[in-house]
Amino acid sequence: MTQVRETVSFKAGDVILYPGVPGPRDRAYRVLEGLVRLEAVDEEGNALTLRLVRPGGFFGEEALFGQERIYFAEAATDVRLEPLPENPDPELLKDLAQHLSQGLAEAYRRIERLATQRLKNRMAAALLELSETPLAHEEEGKVVLKATHDELAAAVGSVRETVTKVIGELAREGYIRSGYGKIQLLDLKGLKELAESRGQGR
Amino acid sequence: MTQVRETVSFKAGDVILYPGVPGPRDRAYRVLEGLVRLEAVDEEGNALTLRLVRPGGFFGEEALFGQERIYFAEAATDVRLEPLPENPDPELLKDLAQHLSQGLAEAYRRIERLATQRLKNRMAAALLELSETPLAHEEEGKVVLKATHDELAAAVGSVRETVTKVIGELAREGYIRSGYGKIQLLDLKGLKELAESRGQGR
Repeated sequence: MTQVRETVSFKAGDVILYPGVPGPRDRAYRVLEGLVRLEAVDEEGNALTLRLVRPGGFFGEEALFGQERIYFAEAATDVRLEPLPENPDPELLKDLAQHLSQGLAEAYRRIERLATQRLKNRMAAALLELSETPLAHEEEGKVVLKATHDELAAAVGSVRETVTKVIGELAREGYIRSGYGKIQLLDLKGLKELAESRGQGR
Repeated sequence: MTQVRETVSFKAGDVILYPGVPGPRDRAYRVLEGLVRLEAVDEEGNALTLRLVRPGGFFGEEALFGQERIYFAEAATDVRLEPLPENPDPELLKDLAQHLSQGLAEAYRRIERLATQRLKNRMAAALLELSETPLAHEEEGKVVLKATHDELAAAVGSVRETVTKVIGELAREGYIRSGYGKIQLLDLKGLKELAESRGQGR
């Protein structure tokens, strides 16, 4: 017997799920290809990244449990998704629980960074996180990220103007090279050290 | 057939789980009674609350999946817990996944508050969150929380000195009354309005 796997595709920038109480057509998804960004957006349109969902990961799980969704799910790259059945089998439930457990650990780290780290150190952490997603590729042996300053501001919970300053500082100090809508990571070791420390003056 | 439910008890202040890679004796737990606080603690001993686990909720789930634990689990009140079996049945897995989904939503809210709200508004949110836990009881028709300024600092991601100022401000403005190790909530509606807004000067 062959099993046909239902898949759906979205283009980079598409909104996949909106905040609100899940309706009957709402689904939970597993990411097969690409990157999905879960984000909160305030009244002025400023986005804040809540979680990045990479291939193998799940999102939209609140539809399975009748819980309210408090985020937008956006395709950060072109994505291919597998909608989950309404009543997942035990194996799928275990995969989902495992992924949510990992997602919680990532959220805890984000909470810790926001409460204790300076922006420059949070930015180093965000760049390293993005470097392990489909937004990153290699050029001449260096990791290059596709990311605008708005997207970086959303990743660290700040605003573009401030982020532009911090990116400039990281570039002057040789950690990165910043180009139009992309960032080249020059010093991964140095970025890791920044990401693991709190930062000065706090 | 009677089913014997294994339970374990801890006293307020006891550490139930430590950070690290789960060992063979590590268990995941369901809270039956009391409140468990998951927290990160930095080198100077400052705590940061990551999640509050109320009766019906789960924690320590990383032990089921062989993931590293990045938090301390502390008994915030006397607690009674049910250790989960190593291989939960499908019904329990579904309960767990549902709880983790809700835990993620709470973590998203905490991330949003930390990134966008002023301390006074975060404090209002934290007081309201605590008012729905076993740390709260009623006295003369008002909610009273058992909480030190250190615990409130951990709840909002700040330090005691700053929290003492904000608590003083909330008290002067008539939102709360602050006593030794306890806070009386006088104006729930006002606190809700504060918790739902960003705060001035940001």
